[in-house]
Amino acid sequence: MKSYRKELWFNTPHRRDFINITPDVENCLAESGIREGLVLVNAMHITASVFINDDESGLHQDFEVWLEKLAPEKPHNQYKHNSYEDNADAHLKRMVFGREVVVAVTDSRLDFGPWEQIFYGEFDGKRKKRVLVKIIGD
Amino acid sequence: MKSYRKELWFNTPHRRDFINITPDVENCLAESGIREGLVLVNAMHITASVFINDDESGLHQDFEVWLEKLAPEKPHNQYKHNSYEDNADAHLKRMVFGREVVVAVTDSRLDFGPWEQIFYGEFDGKRKKRVLVKIIGD
Amino acid sequence: MKSYRKELWFNTPHRRDFINITPDVENCLAESGIREGLVLVNAMHITASVFINDDESGLHQDFEVWLEKLAPEKPHNQYKHNSYEDNADAHLKRMVFGREVVVAVTDSRLDFGPWEQIFYGEFDGKRKKRVLVKIIGD
Repeated sequence: MKSYRKELWFNTPHRRDFINITPDVENCLAESGIREGLVLVNAMHITASVFINDDESGLHQDFEVWLEKLAPEKPHNQYKHNSYEDNADAHLKRMVFGREVVVAVTDSRLDFGPWEQIFYGEFDGKRKKRVLVKIIGD
Repeated sequence: MKSYRKELWFNTPHRRDFINITPDVENCLAESGIREGLVLVNAMHITASVFINDDESGLHQDFEVWLEKLAPEKPHNQYKHNSYEDNADAHLKRMVFGREVVVAVTDSRLDFGPWEQIFYGEFDGKRKKRVLVKIIGD
Repeated sequence: MKSYRKELWFNTPHRRDFINITPDVENCLAESGIREGLVLVNAMHITASVFINDDESGLHQDFEVWLEKLAPEKPHNQYKHNSYEDNADAHLKRMVFGREVVVAVTDSRLDFGPWEQIFYGEFDGKRKKRVLVKIIGD
């Protein structure tokens, strides 16, 4: 069994952003030389997500509005977590969108349906944060 | 390390449906001959989910009502995604229910608790869509 | 490829509780002798979650309030599932927080960012329930 590990770094310009990281993960897979196995891609921070959905800008605006409705950022003092911090909403939003994805590797490729794309979902940005790519297989 | 891959196809009669696919995944596992490892089961489309919960019809009606409350289908024009499409709500519902499950394989069996069952959750059906089953192990 | 399996048992004092199980999973990893691979940690019951977030008590109180807002326990008769049971809300809460986490193993350690901790999220407790830890790798 082979294994491969890489960290991807991000520093988003806004508090909340969605970044398509599919090409980065494809590069990792090519570098790994793994032909059959599984890729794990996870946020290493607890106020961010890695998820799979469509790369469509209207949809991403819908994500923003919807997550703000489910777990609003403000007023900051509605959350017990926010005594010295202001990011409780980011911890909640990440629970809806999830920490990680696991993707099959088949014939050296991400084994995806027609519209699947991997995104980094940042909910408390404007600082350096990381995503882990771990691949195991043969 | 062995690996196995199969696509399961669905064409649900309604826009939204829940289908118990546990027997299909068990058949895949038997076919794979893998005794110890991991099974990944994921929707290949971004308006559908694969998840694990109880096979209880009242609960599935509760799922439908609850998801419609969290991410209502209508009015379609409340979503930016819906300029040429009408399925933004399906993209959101899938974020709550998730894309995939990873299940342990132990002694050639899905290593499940007493009530765990795998479901395909369709949120934009009435057309052909796929689920991927990928198994790795020995 | 090596594989390792262990069940962790819980009997929480309240209907809803969050328990940090990171040390338990670290013990499993040490016991397994696996240096490179993946750990799957999943609730074996469908009214509980395993998830990764921050070990901060204010945040856990926010989780409780927020989940009760998204999927309130009472009145019990608002849910079709609750004809002989009263735990439909627990099935829904578990869908938000998820069933499982998959964590990379690198150099015999859980490959975590600075604040990542694994939690058992109980939504229908006061009885014995289990979590599965499955590790595969070399």
